[in-house]
Amino acid sequence: MDISSIIALAVILAASFATAMTAAVSRPGPWYAALDKPWWTPPNWLFPIAWSIMYALMSASAFLVWRFAPPGEAFAPLSAYAIQLVLNGLWSPVFFRMQWMGLAYLVVVAMWVAILYTIVLFFQINYWAGLMMLPYLLWVTVASFLNLSVWRMNRGRTVHADGTTA
Amino acid sequence: MDISSIIALAVILAASFATAMTAAVSRPGPWYAALDKPWWTPPNWLFPIAWSIMYALMSASAFLVWRFAPPGEAFAPLSAYAIQLVLNGLWSPVFFRMQWMGLAYLVVVAMWVAILYTIVLFFQINYWAGLMMLPYLLWVTVASFLNLSVWRMNRGRTVHADGTTA
Repeated sequence: MDISSIIALAVILAASFATAMTAAVSRPGPWYAALDKPWWTPPNWLFPIAWSIMYALMSASAFLVWRFAPPGEAFAPLSAYAIQLVLNGLWSPVFFRMQWMGLAYLVVVAMWVAILYTIVLFFQINYWAGLMMLPYLLWVTVASFLNLSVWRMNRGRTVHADGTTA
Repeated sequence: MDISSIIALAVILAASFATAMTAAVSRPGPWYAALDKPWWTPPNWLFPIAWSIMYALMSASAFLVWRFAPPGEAFAPLSAYAIQLVLNGLWSPVFFRMQWMGLAYLVVVAMWVAILYTIVLFFQINYWAGLMMLPYLLWVTVASFLNLSVWRMNRGRTVHADGTTA
């Protein structure tokens, strides 16, 4: 493994951890706890576990693409990857901090499309790189339905930041 | 890159993200904000950035060791790595949740020793693997001094979980 690959791996990982940290600093609090949620909402403890696995798989995928892309062909798939990662990093602040559930839903739908496009490009480079992104797409599918459901179920209700309702 | 390396990379990354998530779910709150802290305490916003870089570098290091270790020789350095990672994952819950600053200090000192030992073993496998662990050791050195200082400065004071003092 040459030095450029080591640097690429470190950069890919730093981007993933930085994105994960946006979720860490924009966490669900009393506001989220007080929202009406659908019966199939995953339990809170599942989210950090699921996200750990998703970030691990997507980072490994991006590194595979870097390693296996023919010269000059890594740029497009890794750009698509970067776009979905930026959208991923936007979602938690928009949902949990700004508490704009409608805007957050737009973000997560754009993110879902970007992930799908990334997967298509990744499969053209390496089979495993594409495959390891699929759990992430499924998880974001669930997350987007959850975002939409919570948004719809709480329209017309006022839930304050401290969790009290009016 | 063979399938076992891809799996190893995904496992190393999942372990790192899972450890990072222990910090994400045990965050500083009003209790930490109310503690007396030394003048050189890094600002709160620096911690997630620094940790993103540290986790990225350490994960890349561990993967290099997996890739470059002669057959049978990856076990010892990666075991040392796993031990320091477990100690890393214990620290935030002990400090921020249990609010046991003395026990947290013991954890961070044990972690510092485990990181140093990991670095020695990593350097024997690959130069870059050892080198990329050094910022982490420096950061944990600062963190351990911060833990010790905060512990000493707040002995005899009672700081409640809501940040009020008595």
